[in-house]
Amino acid sequence: MKIMVVGGNGMLGRKLVAKLIQNSIDGKIDVETIISVDVGSNQSEIKKIPVNLAFVTADITNFKVCQQLISNKPDVIFHLAAVVSGEAESNFETGYKVNLDATRNIFEAIRIESNNYHPRVVFTSSAAVYGGPFPELINDEFILQPTTSYGIQKVIGELLVNDYSRLGFFNGIGLRLPTICVRPGKPNAAASGVFSNIIREPLAGKEAILTVSKDTQMVFASPQSAVDNLIHALNVDTTLLGNRRCLTMPGITATVAEEIQALHKVAGDKIVALIKESIDPSAQKFVNNWNFPPFTADRAQGLGFSCEQSFEEIIIKHINNELSGEILGAKL
Amino acid sequence: MKIMVVGGNGMLGRKLVAKLIQNSIDGKIDVETIISVDVGSNQSEIKKIPVNLAFVTADITNFKVCQQLISNKPDVIFHLAAVVSGEAESNFETGYKVNLDATRNIFEAIRIESNNYHPRVVFTSSAAVYGGPFPELINDEFILQPTTSYGIQKVIGELLVNDYSRLGFFNGIGLRLPTICVRPGKPNAAASGVFSNIIREPLAGKEAILTVSKDTQMVFASPQSAVDNLIHALNVDTTLLGNRRCLTMPGITATVAEEIQALHKVAGDKIVALIKESIDPSAQKFVNNWNFPPFTADRAQGLGFSCEQSFEEIIIKHINNELSGEILGAKL
Repeated sequence: MKIMVVGGNGMLGRKLVAKLIQNSIDGKIDVETIISVDVGSNQSEIKKIPVNLAFVTADITNFKVCQQLISNKPDVIFHLAAVVSGEAESNFETGYKVNLDATRNIFEAIRIESNNYHPRVVFTSSAAVYGGPFPELINDEFILQPTTSYGIQKVIGELLVNDYSRLGFFNGIGLRLPTICVRPGKPNAAASGVFSNIIREPLAGKEAILTVSKDTQMVFASPQSAVDNLIHALNVDTTLLGNRRCLTMPGITATVAEEIQALHKVAGDKIVALIKESIDPSAQKFVNNWNFPPFTADRAQGLGFSCEQSFEEIIIKHINNELSGEILGAKL
Repeated sequence: MKIMVVGGNGMLGRKLVAKLIQNSIDGKIDVETIISVDVGSNQSEIKKIPVNLAFVTADITNFKVCQQLISNKPDVIFHLAAVVSGEAESNFETGYKVNLDATRNIFEAIRIESNNYHPRVVFTSSAAVYGGPFPELINDEFILQPTTSYGIQKVIGELLVNDYSRLGFFNGIGLRLPTICVRPGKPNAAASGVFSNIIREPLAGKEAILTVSKDTQMVFASPQSAVDNLIHALNVDTTLLGNRRCLTMPGITATVAEEIQALHKVAGDKIVALIKESIDPSAQKFVNNWNFPPFTADRAQGLGFSCEQSFEEIIIKHINNELSGEILGAKL
């Protein structure tokens, strides 16, 4: 199987490429070639590589570049490339250029490539497709009326996945990922970064600024479950999806207060004390767009997609995967 | 008020321009200038014109053309231009070019025009934004997951109306029009044309081919109520819409059998006998995308949008407006 990961140098993209290779080593999937495409520097720390692994620096806002990429005829295209929510909101033109136009570029390049080419496309959507006013519970039937440019762009991407799939141009599936938590590394411009910052920074012995109120509520899953679900999407029988190709992924609903309680349970007083509250009204206003009620994800769960069982489990995964199982030098 | 009607030479566009002029004569609205824009021949039969009326032939798939049009700074833009459903389905590229790209061209031209220019935009969406599987009743909360390219393009237009309005680039409102019935004139490529053909042609003494089964169900409103609702949209307080700027318009739900019953009641045996059944599987398959359950339109009705009370009323309006109140020479 030849796999292309568009946005392969992002946080999820790198983890996805690494996991695809690991799964190949473990004999779980048959990977011949991975092509990781990104606009920025594109590299990996992966050493032993039993598959052909190519890193391509490419700007997918250029249609001809997309045609060149797609001329490799990958069997699978993971489309993870996106301008994140905060940036899409502050820079209207860049948001639409990348999240809408570049997505269309890839889809159009696939459509035009040849009559016999119908790859599987795994599109990363987001829980940001939902906007208020919210019901008490968001289920698979809840209307997609986002209140951010990022959310609008993701819904449009989903609609295109539905149409291109219905017409047989490709075999698409979209995953509405919850807020990925705990995001490793440095904060990015995602407005949802604060929900990770207040866990990651204290666990590394650093202060974190809590910029939103403690009753702000979000839906979360770990980077590991996001990657596992993306790979699971390779094998889903898409005929079961009908014309609605995009699925809300399961997640853990938690308020900031509940995040902090879970951190306290896992890591204790001293770690929690590193969280300093300083509400930023503009950050609060933005995340209020996603002050989600609990989610159900019946369709996705019925098809075998999964996530953690509790926010503690999300924190423990972060400690095991990113901190060698230690909190400030002490084994968990 | 300076009003631009994009798609001003279409069936609804012409009626809208005529009604705007009539309303100006009647002192109901203050119209200074109407600019009717269309890609095709653009003319009107209107004789006495108390307002500045300009007909512009323009291709809105060209962004610079849109910039030129918008440089007139109309206070209101009615955006009616679209490739109809059947054509959007049979010609993928044209559908996206006109229904998506040209819509964006107009919206972008408005956004870029100047910081102080924030016109009202009345966008014509369609009941085709809905796709099955359907619940027993479609209400304002029902998910927008169309199963035709036309429907997808209309939802994308709606989402853009929401985003551009939320960000203050313009003050938008979208009207999801039911199937317009009875469409006067010749059949167009709208897949829903059959629902009008079987009324219009017999009333003119001509045979009509019924290409879909009698239990096919749709939601209807007259061209007059569509035009009245478009004009009503000028005065709606859009702050009441929140971030969901697009409204399902009220309509009369009827099966083809019920249409024929109503025609029988209004026009009798001989007229109904002119309907010849000859099911076209491809037409049936396409309209099955819209085999709608009944609709509620609570939001729209709460804001004063309205429609006919029965399918008979729709037929009688057609006879009065298009046939001088006569059926084959006999007064109704």
